[in-house]
Amino acid sequence: MDVAELVDGVLAGERRAVARAISAVEDDAPELAELSAGIYPETGRAATIGLTGAPGVGKSTLAGELVRIARAADLRAAVLAVDPTSPYTGGALLGDRVRMQDHAVDPGVFIRSMATRGHLGGMALAAPEAVRILDAAGYDVIFVETVGVGQAEVDVAAATDTAVVVMAPGMGDAVQMAKAGILEAADVFVVNKADRDGAPDVAKELRQMLHMGAARDWDPPVLMATSAKAEGVEEVWAAIREHRDGAEASGALTAKRRARLLREAESLAAERFRVKAATALEHDPTLGDDLAERRIDPYAAAQELLRRARGN
Amino acid sequence: MDVAELVDGVLAGERRAVARAISAVEDDAPELAELSAGIYPETGRAATIGLTGAPGVGKSTLAGELVRIARAADLRAAVLAVDPTSPYTGGALLGDRVRMQDHAVDPGVFIRSMATRGHLGGMALAAPEAVRILDAAGYDVIFVETVGVGQAEVDVAAATDTAVVVMAPGMGDAVQMAKAGILEAADVFVVNKADRDGAPDVAKELRQMLHMGAARDWDPPVLMATSAKAEGVEEVWAAIREHRDGAEASGALTAKRRARLLREAESLAAERFRVKAATALEHDPTLGDDLAERRIDPYAAAQELLRRARGN
Repeated sequence: MDVAELVDGVLAGERRAVARAISAVEDDAPELAELSAGIYPETGRAATIGLTGAPGVGKSTLAGELVRIARAADLRAAVLAVDPTSPYTGGALLGDRVRMQDHAVDPGVFIRSMATRGHLGGMALAAPEAVRILDAAGYDVIFVETVGVGQAEVDVAAATDTAVVVMAPGMGDAVQMAKAGILEAADVFVVNKADRDGAPDVAKELRQMLHMGAARDWDPPVLMATSAKAEGVEEVWAAIREHRDGAEASGALTAKRRARLLREAESLAAERFRVKAATALEHDPTLGDDLAERRIDPYAAAQELLRRARGN
Repeated sequence: MDVAELVDGVLAGERRAVARAISAVEDDAPELAELSAGIYPETGRAATIGLTGAPGVGKSTLAGELVRIARAADLRAAVLAVDPTSPYTGGALLGDRVRMQDHAVDPGVFIRSMATRGHLGGMALAAPEAVRILDAAGYDVIFVETVGVGQAEVDVAAATDTAVVVMAPGMGDAVQMAKAGILEAADVFVVNKADRDGAPDVAKELRQMLHMGAARDWDPPVLMATSAKAEGVEEVWAAIREHRDGAEASGALTAKRRARLLREAESLAAERFRVKAATALEHDPTLGDDLAERRIDPYAAAQELLRRARGN
């Protein structure tokens, strides 16, 4: 399949083409530039929703229930589970997303785990393009689920229209979440597993921490849900819609999208630059020797790399 | 204080100079290049140890106990707690590191929380320079503790001589750790809070997962400890020493350090490039308009940024 066919397949919403295009993103394949150019004019329609939270809070279960609601409203839905690469698990992480299996035979649902090949900022660079592929393929609602609660995961979630942070009793408290820089990136909070002891305390502590923060245009709601029993999920869906409708009406969504496209282009260019610099260093070990033997420090070496890039 | 004085202060091991130099790294201050050049020849002596794990597993308690052991061996010890920035907590995260307070009056111990100002890969870029400052200041053992279990935190831990991954019963299982890409970055595993139910199961599951991985030169041990009772920590210390002594003897440490210096220089150069590109885009909104109105896709925009960088 050549790239033009792949683009046509994605735009026609063909599952196999979509899967192949996302693999091209994972692999940072050479055809990515042409693919990106081909689909980009057809993007921007989907509502994108980030789901972030510590392992075990029930993000996948919540995603599964939100997909169910979206389908009931006759919306096509996709779930992109973004995981860092591990040689132990590879890209095959869907096995544990058992509840997602309910949707596996629904042609209006696309579920995909995505791993990136481990360079710094890999997820943050790869996820937006994968989301655009799903957008161009006609999915109305795209959930981006991240694993982990580090800065990179927060960055991935922040690159969606509506960032949902999921917590659960006993799975790291609000103070821990604040440390991960997650509070200010969120548009909607969900205290999941709300039937467990301690859920009201998690919500209370979270509200107190939010109260300490700077005032914002949108006051992120703190909702209680028990996704495994489908309780409270309609309210989560309503809050996501309300956030997005408000951001669309105020122009905040347009501004946010423009800003993140610029950041993405800058980061892509920087990453390309980094790869070029690494290749140049491989062919000329002098700078590595100088670094290792402490004749030049890393900052000066970086300056030298920038200087060389300008020179040719 | 000018930069030459600051460098002299760091090399003399003056606490105030060390603190100020690390603040310069946090702020990405203009004097950083000169500071880095000044201290770099005096680095490379310290043993650096990463401590990574989910919130609540007891990393700080373990660090405190390891510092106690290092001090008993008459080694100067530093703890660098690397946190992502949050406007709610700022850089002042030491409040919860209560057990560290035992060491607060010991002149042979330096404890510091470090926050970076939130750009992608910020921690990974800033932490190594802060470690070098502590190294140049004469600390023999430097612990780098990270918050969160995402890719960025793994990258920070991997930039030490010996990466210790800390787990605890009920705080995310081995499968979750594998997803965060953490297993293959570790040299020593500690199942902390070993007096709790389920600790042997965590160790067992972890050993099984490690067994599935590729064979390595160093077989990472899985140790049990209860840091709060100072149980098993001597064994952790011994394993760290054994790993480092082995890596030093085999030449693996030298190779690892060289490789990470090269990666650091590449990443620093790429980050500088990114900042330049962002500044250029601020002064010329055309590319932003083209992106927002879908006349150019992010990959093509990145190419254009690289092209412009070569042109001037």
